[in-house]
Amino acid sequence: MHAVEVIHNKRDGARLTDSQIDWVVAAYTRGEVADEQMAALAMAILLNGMDAGEIAHWTQAMIDSGEVLSFGDVGRPLVDKHSTGGVGDKITLPLAPLVAACGAAVPQLSGRGLGHTGGTLDKLESIPGWRASLSDEEIAAQLADVGAVICATTPTLAPADRKLYALRDVTGTVESIPLIASSIMSKKIAEGTGGLVLDVKFGSGAFMKTPERARQLAETMVAIGTAHGLATTALLTDMSVPLGRAVGNALEVAESVEVLRGGGPSDVVELTVALAREMLALAGITDATRRRCSPPARRTRCGSG
Amino acid sequence: MHAVEVIHNKRDGARLTDSQIDWVVAAYTRGEVADEQMAALAMAILLNGMDAGEIAHWTQAMIDSGEVLSFGDVGRPLVDKHSTGGVGDKITLPLAPLVAACGAAVPQLSGRGLGHTGGTLDKLESIPGWRASLSDEEIAAQLADVGAVICATTPTLAPADRKLYALRDVTGTVESIPLIASSIMSKKIAEGTGGLVLDVKFGSGAFMKTPERARQLAETMVAIGTAHGLATTALLTDMSVPLGRAVGNALEVAESVEVLRGGGPSDVVELTVALAREMLALAGITDATRRRCSPPARRTRCGSG
Repeated sequence: MHAVEVIHNKRDGARLTDSQIDWVVAAYTRGEVADEQMAALAMAILLNGMDAGEIAHWTQAMIDSGEVLSFGDVGRPLVDKHSTGGVGDKITLPLAPLVAACGAAVPQLSGRGLGHTGGTLDKLESIPGWRASLSDEEIAAQLADVGAVICATTPTLAPADRKLYALRDVTGTVESIPLIASSIMSKKIAEGTGGLVLDVKFGSGAFMKTPERARQLAETMVAIGTAHGLATTALLTDMSVPLGRAVGNALEVAESVEVLRGGGPSDVVELTVALAREMLALAGITDATRRRCSPPARRTRCGSG
Repeated sequence: MHAVEVIHNKRDGARLTDSQIDWVVAAYTRGEVADEQMAALAMAILLNGMDAGEIAHWTQAMIDSGEVLSFGDVGRPLVDKHSTGGVGDKITLPLAPLVAACGAAVPQLSGRGLGHTGGTLDKLESIPGWRASLSDEEIAAQLADVGAVICATTPTLAPADRKLYALRDVTGTVESIPLIASSIMSKKIAEGTGGLVLDVKFGSGAFMKTPERARQLAETMVAIGTAHGLATTALLTDMSVPLGRAVGNALEVAESVEVLRGGGPSDVVELTVALAREMLALAGITDATRRRCSPPARRTRCGSG
C-alpha cells in the first residue's frame, strides 16, 4: 500500500477502506508514513470528512496502535468522563472523588493544556510533590483502594493518537470532528473504562463555537462508543463565560477543594453534580445517597444526583 | 507570522494575503516552515483553490526565492516553450534547433521524467557524454553562439519550487492547477525568456485528463505570464495516443534526429511546426522562410510555419 494512494482517495472525496485505515495508522505510528504525508491526509479528512464507519474504524486502528489497559477487578464499576475543555473547567477535580465516594471507580487518565484551555494535569502539578505519571499497577491499586485516579495517559495508550495529535497541532488540522472524536474516544476506549460521560462544551470559550457543532461532535463520539460496546452519554454545556470564579492552575485546585467541602461557585457545583448523576447512572449506582456518601457535605451533592 | 494561521486561512476558504504568501514561501525555503505544515497548506490549496491574484503572487514569491537569470544580449529574441508532458513527447528535441535556425534564441531549461511521462534531460542523457548541468555563463555563451540550449535548471532558479515540488510528489498534492501553474511559470519567468509558448496536453496519456481541465490550466498559466509581463500563448494538444512511434529515451532522440532531417512521424512534425510557428510569432520573426532557414529540409518546415 502507498501513502499517496490513500491520500488521493480521501482528497478525491472517496471513503477510506478498512485496510487503508489500518495500514496508514499503523505505518504512521512506525514512522513509515512521513509526517508530511499524514499532514496532507489530515487536511483532506478535515475538508472532505469521514463517515461513521470510517470514524469507527479509524478509532479502532488508533486503539490497536497500543495496548488496551485492564485494571482487573477493582471491586467497583468503572466509569469515566471527558470534557472537551473550556476556560476555568476544573470539574474533574471535584467530580472524580465525588463519584468515587458514591461507589464507582474513576480511571481519569488526563491531558495537558490545549490551546487556550487548561489541563487537569497542569492544575494538579501546582500541588508540590504531586506526580502525573503512574504505572499500570499503581493505577489499578489506587482504583481499588481510593476509587479514583487522576494521572497522565500511559505511553502505550493509543501511541498513534499521541503522534497524530502533536502533528495536527502544528498543521492547522485540529478542528476536524472525525479527528477530534476518534482522538478522544481511542484513548477512553483503550483505557478500559466501563462507561463514559462526555461533557461537550460550546460557546466563545470552547473549541466548538456553536451548539450545533458541539452536538455533532457529541453524537459522533457517542456513536463511536456505541460501536465499540462502551456505554457513552454526553451533555452539551455552555462555555460562553468561564466556569466558576477561579482561572489558573493553583486557584482552580483551591476552588475545587472548596466545592468538595460543600461550598464553591454554584455553576461548578451544578455541572459537577449533573455529570456525577450521569456517571452513576452508567455505573448502575442508583442509591448513592443512602448507601455510600458518608460526609454530610458530600451526601447533599450525591442526593441531588 | 505563524504557519498555522496561514494554513487556517486557506483551510477555511479565505484568500491568502500577499504578505502571508511572501512569508510562507520564503520561510518554507529557509526551512522555518516544516514540510508537514507546507503539506497541509498544499492540500488546503488543492481542495479550496487560489484566485488569480493569489496565484500571481504565489508565483512571484517562488521567483523571489531564487535568482532571476539574465543572459545579457545574445543578439536574438529569446523565446521558450513548455510542455505539460505526455507519452513519447520528444518535441523539445527537434523544436529548439528548428526555432534557433529561424533566428530566435531558445533557453530551454528542462526537467526530469515526472510520473509516467519522460523528461527531456533523461532523453538527452542517452547520448554518451552529454551533460545536463551548465553554468549561467555556458548557457549565455551557447545561446549567443548556437541560438538554443537544452540543460537542467540551475540550483538558484526558484528553489522554493524545487522543494515544494518534491513535497507535493509524496503528499498527493500534485494535481492542483494553481500549484502546477505557479510551479511551471515561476521557473519560466525566472529563466528570463522574452516569450513563452505552452503546450498543454489533455487525454489519457496526460496529467490533465479532459480538454476542460487542460484549458483551465492553460488559461491560468497565460494569466500568470501576462501578469508578469511575459508574452505567453498556449496550444491545447491531444495526448490520447503517444506522440510519434518511439517511446524510450534513446529511441526518442533517434526519432527527433529523423524529424530534423526532414522525416519522422507526421504527428511529431506537425506539432513541432505548430509550436515553432507560435514561438517565432512571439519572437517577432515573420520572415523565417526567406531569411533564416538554410538547409532545404528545414526550410520546408519553417515555410509551413
